Amino acid sequence: MSAELEIRRATVADVPTIVSLIRELAEFERLAHEVVVTEELLTEQLFGQRPGAEVVIARVGQEVVGFALFFQNFSTFLGRPGLYLEDLYVRPKFRGLGHGEQLLRYLARICIERGYGRFEWSVLDWNQRAIDFYKGMGARPMEEWTVFRVTGEALAKLAAPDA
Amino acid sequence: MSAELEIRRATVADVPTIVSLIRELAEFERLAHEVVVTEELLTEQLFGQRPGAEVVIARVGQEVVGFALFFQNFSTFLGRPGLYLEDLYVRPKFRGLGHGEQLLRYLARICIERGYGRFEWSVLDWNQRAIDFYKGMGARPMEEWTVFRVTGEALAKLAAPDA
Repeated sequence: MSAELEIRRATVADVPTIVSLIRELAEFERLAHEVVVTEELLTEQLFGQRPGAEVVIARVGQEVVGFALFFQNFSTFLGRPGLYLEDLYVRPKFRGLGHGEQLLRYLARICIERGYGRFEWSVLDWNQRAIDFYKGMGARPMEEWTVFRVTGEALAKLAAPDA
Repeated sequence: MSAELEIRRATVADVPTIVSLIRELAEFERLAHEVVVTEELLTEQLFGQRPGAEVVIARVGQEVVGFALFFQNFSTFLGRPGLYLEDLYVRPKFRGLGHGEQLLRYLARICIERGYGRFEWSVLDWNQRAIDFYKGMGARPMEEWTVFRVTGEALAKLAAPDA
């Protein structure tokens, strides 16, 4: 069934579609309240002078199946870059057809072509379906690590404690 | 005591020092077996045509106190880049003097100057001293997320399952 899937690099014309897919993904992740991305912001970040991320879109015929957004990270231990997959999303009606697997394999080929040492992404702990899928693809959960985040007012305060 | 600390951007001349510090950090993290970085690799990645990361070094007088290595990541929800701190290391004899805090605040100022929306890093679950320190600085543990990683042979197999 997944034989018809076409994966290709996004263009500026895809930005409205990508923003819609980001919103769909956020709803699935129960994080819709965190979404403030706009088409203008995304156009600048993906296709401006200093792109901060890359996107591939998956289609079957004219229908958009899903997308992946990723950027380069870096491992000091390896001394080499890696690929960090920020978002992987397959629309609900297209799930269970192997499209997510094809997207992951596409990104893994990018890693090999570019000489990246690692391919990483983050998964919500309640998303057991995704966890089982990723383990089946050879991914290892880095359970001994926790990401810490500073954002918003806490970030401003960290930068200027006496302001 | 931390008043004498000088934090500045690393130059090519600092690469041997940075590699030594990466090895010290890996030993502290009990991950020394994972370190394969060389001075040649790091020079290319930090100071080549397409730098994949940036480094700041902290000194007191002529003595190297520690370093931070970071790169730009990207939040689809915000539509903006963030700063990901891959390594933060203060040598044992210089701990407890506020140097780590000054390094974090220096990086937070970079976030504000560049318009980054987030400042993130990862912490080993057994490193309670670091966890307490980061929480005190306003960072929030993203405990509901787990990073998955594919590397080495598993990455090659994901890219080319039939090879």
